[in-house]
This record gives sequence, C-alpha cells and structure tokens, in this order.
Amino acid sequence: MLTVFGSTALDTIRTPTRVLRGVLGGAATFASISASYFVKTGLIAVVGKDFPKKYHNTLARNLDLRGFRIQEGKTFRYDGRYDETLSTRTTLKTELNVLENFKPTVPEEYRKSEYVYLANNDPEQNVNFIKEFDNVKFSMCDTIEFWISHKKLSVIKMIKAVDAVVINDEEAKLLTKEHNLIKCAKKIMNWGAKYVVIKKGEHGSLLFYDGIIFPSVAFSLEDIVDPTGAGDSFAGAMIGYLASKRCTNLSTIKKAVVYGNVLGSFAVEKFGLDGILDLKKSQISKRVKHYEKMIRF
Amino acid sequence: MLTVFGSTALDTIRTPTRVLRGVLGGAATFASISASYFVKTGLIAVVGKDFPKKYHNTLARNLDLRGFRIQEGKTFRYDGRYDETLSTRTTLKTELNVLENFKPTVPEEYRKSEYVYLANNDPEQNVNFIKEFDNVKFSMCDTIEFWISHKKLSVIKMIKAVDAVVINDEEAKLLTKEHNLIKCAKKIMNWGAKYVVIKKGEHGSLLFYDGIIFPSVAFSLEDIVDPTGAGDSFAGAMIGYLASKRCTNLSTIKKAVVYGNVLGSFAVEKFGLDGILDLKKSQISKRVKHYEKMIRF
Repeated sequence: MLTVFGSTALDTIRTPTRVLRGVLGGAATFASISASYFVKTGLIAVVGKDFPKKYHNTLARNLDLRGFRIQEGKTFRYDGRYDETLSTRTTLKTELNVLENFKPTVPEEYRKSEYVYLANNDPEQNVNFIKEFDNVKFSMCDTIEFWISHKKLSVIKMIKAVDAVVINDEEAKLLTKEHNLIKCAKKIMNWGAKYVVIKKGEHGSLLFYDGIIFPSVAFSLEDIVDPTGAGDSFAGAMIGYLASKRCTNLSTIKKAVVYGNVLGSFAVEKFGLDGILDLKKSQISKRVKHYEKMIRF
Repeated sequence: MLTVFGSTALDTIRTPTRVLRGVLGGAATFASISASYFVKTGLIAVVGKDFPKKYHNTLARNLDLRGFRIQEGKTFRYDGRYDETLSTRTTLKTELNVLENFKPTVPEEYRKSEYVYLANNDPEQNVNFIKEFDNVKFSMCDTIEFWISHKKLSVIKMIKAVDAVVINDEEAKLLTKEHNLIKCAKKIMNWGAKYVVIKKGEHGSLLFYDGIIFPSVAFSLEDIVDPTGAGDSFAGAMIGYLASKRCTNLSTIKKAVVYGNVLGSFAVEKFGLDGILDLKKSQISKRVKHYEKMIRF
C-alpha cells in the first residue's frame, strides 16, 4: 500500500471567475485522492471538529482512513487569491489550527507500506515520521516556501532521508539559490535524493536521475479554472502509479511522471478537488493515450 | 531556396558575466544563419557603412547576399541588458538608423523562392514584400512587441498574408489579449494563419494546426550564457528544414519544430551569434537524436 502524510485543509480559493469558501483541500488530500486511482492509499492527517461530515465521507469513499484523526479545535485553513492569469497566487491567510501540534501515529497496519509520500508537512516531523515504517521501498517528499524559508536545514535533512523529491520550479530555485533548473536538481541530488522532479506548472516537468534528464510537457488545456492542488495531484499520481507497478526503475518512473502530468491536468479543469474526484479509470488511460499521441513526431 | 527578410544589427548585449559591444546580431541574421544549415538561404537586409568587414565576411561565407545592401549611414543598433536569471531583457537603446527608410528590393533570382521568412520588420512593409514573390509555397513571420504596440492592425494583416506565425508567448498574449496560449493561437489562426508556433524559451514551444497541438520541450541545458537570437535561430531552423524537405505536411512541420528547438539550444550556449556559427551538420543531427532519446518514455 501507499501511505500519504500531510495536510488536509479547508480552503478558500479566490479565482477571477469564482470564490470557493471552506472547501476540502490540502496537499495530502489532493495527493492521496490522486494516488487512490492506482493503489490502496492510506491518508495520515488531522482535522478539527469543524470538518464537515460530507468531506469526511468523500475521503472515506476513496481512502483508508485508519491514520486520519479528528481532534478538538479547528481544521487547518488556507485562503489564497489567484491573479487574472491564474499563474500567481497570493496567500491571504494561513491558520495551522490543529495541524500545529499534531503528533501523527502510524497505524500498525501501515508500517509495512513500501511506498510513502510526505506532502508538505514540517520537514523535521517528516524525518521522524519516515522512520516509523519497516520496509520502505520508495519514499518521496515535496516541500513549500514556508519550510524552505524557516527550516532550510531540516528540509535538506528530509531530502537526505527520501528517495525522490518533487518540488516546483520557484521553490527549487529558492531552496538551492540557483537559477538554472539543472543546477537546482544537481544540488538537491548532492544532498542525497536519488530522483528529483521539478514541476513547472503549465510547462510540465523535469525528471532528473543520475546523469539523465527527462523533460515532459504538460497536457495542453484551453480551459483552466483553478490550479489549486495540481502539483499535489501530480505527485500523488506519480507515487500511486509506482506503487501499483511495485517497480521503481527509470522507465517506470518516467511513465509515472506522465501520469503525474495527466492527473495534474484533470485537477485544474474544475474547482477545488472536483477535477480529480470521481474520475473513471478509463478517462485517465484515455488521456494518457492522448498525451502520448500529442507529443509524438 | 529560402529568402529571409529582416534586420541585421550591431548589438550590445549585457549579460551578468560579460558585455559584448557592437557584435553581429539581428533577427534576420540569426534566422538566416540557422536556416543555412539546411538550405541555400538568401538574406535581404540593410546595414550602414560602419558595418565591419569581418561581419560581412561571416555573412558571405554562409549566405547568398544578392539582396543584402550597404547604405550611407549607420547600421541598426540594439543595446539590451539581461538580469541575473537571463530570463528578462531590458532594452536600453534602439537606433533604427539605415533600417528606418530601407526600401528592400527582391533580386530577380529570389523571386522564385518557395520559402520566405519575415523576421520582425515593419508588418506593412512585410505585406508588400511578400507580394514580390511569384510562387511562395510556405511563408512564415515573427513579430515583436514594438509592432504589436504601434501597428497592431498591420500585424494582423501580415498574419493573414502568411502560412505560419512564430511568436513568443509574451508577445502572443500581448497581441491577442488572452492569457491561455491555446486561446492565443486560436485567435491568431482565426486571423488567417494556418500554423501558429508559440515559443516559450526554456520551456520549449507549442505548435498549433487545425485542432492539433504539438507541445515540445526545449533541449535541456545547464550552461546558458546568452539567450539573444534563440527564438530567431528556432524560426530559421524550422523554415530551413521545411525548405530542405520541400514538404510542409504536419509531420514534417513537427520535425521542423524539433530542429527549431535544437538550433535554439545551440544559440544560447555561446555569446552572440557564436553558438550557431560554424556548427557541423553532424553536431546538429547528434543533438536531434539526443533530443529524441531524452523525451522518450
């Protein structure tokens, strides 16, 4: 199985066409739902007593929630506004709430997880968390500007502790203080990650491994309404696909990146989590085929 | 043969590591030199009496210069500075000089050119210029912010008069007032271009034709020293390749875009024109093979 650890949130998303208030979000939510199309996925996260029952049902329908906790207090809340191009998001408010002092416990049944994804929580916590697993075959983490600015050394320690890092381009530059993405990736690999995937939003991604670079385009879309969670959906699909294949050779990882691009493209087509909820597996495989045809020359 | 019409310039290029003063540049220079690896290329451009003999020799070694004019006055000069990321260029000075009142004449021997590329000159002039050819099979134009801001209607008229438009992403957005690149391309195609190629610098390009989108990545490079002329080299290689194949079906155009990406990648590896001067054909075909291998999954 795959275990995803990170944030479940209630998001307020302000786009030029619509404002959503208090909707289900969070990096681990997007990643785990996305991964769940490929493999049985357990979500370790915490919410407060204010977490709506309907959202709990959504999670329960798709995920193993034995590691999911409801605690006294309020759910982690995020409020952000996109500009009219949908390419820049300004954070208006972040309330950690119950996330602040959450002590995750790994259910006994999860300890055998061979695949673990660390979705944007405190890097120090992540380093300890990963030690709870007995037999990790492939671990992956993402991180965000907040941790890079506040706990850079811990981020580097976390990178050392995992097999793969997925990170967006701006954060990779911020973390490594390099402008060129190849230089960024080399630095991250020098810190100990075997694989680095740099996400570039509408421009796709770059996978790095050893001396190899695998650039991939994004699935081209005309109607994008909400980019929230696209990168998390990418990462979730990637590790979900790997877990489903029980294989992490380079060619499988490249294919996993393509699935990442495809789930990312579903994510941005609808508001909030709706883009990746209730997809048919045939929709996913159809889009992967479309993707393969699109880039052929 | 291929005819390229546009600017030959003396550039001052300020990069974080080096400043070049009065070096050979100009959109048509980059495009024609790049095209010359594929097909006999004629350059129609004008320079002043100050144009150094050594640069004239460089052009003469690679191009048919029967349409190239040396006039009283100074050569078109451009002065620009890149920021430390090499992704933003600020124009410090533009002196049109002899370019301002240049009346191009198409040599008799060029009138049979089946391939014509219009590299960034005045769109009104371009529309008249293309009429001088008897038998154009494939014509392509680029344009720049200056013409979009000052002569937008003429730019649209020019687009109607050619088969293909290559344009960079920011200029496509400025021209169409759209944020999404697919929407940009649709608008440009509605104005009359059959093919649209949107160049995205380090993120590659998008080719549009009918309902089809062909996204392609850039050739990944770690050491970029000067992005000047990369987009012009891209366009030149594209139409040069098409002219060499005497074929403009979709599959050949896709391949031409790949050659565009490859010549663009050579352009940025050295300062000024040096990146695309004196390449061996085997270097180009080797990099195309490398490109094909790089994106395979």
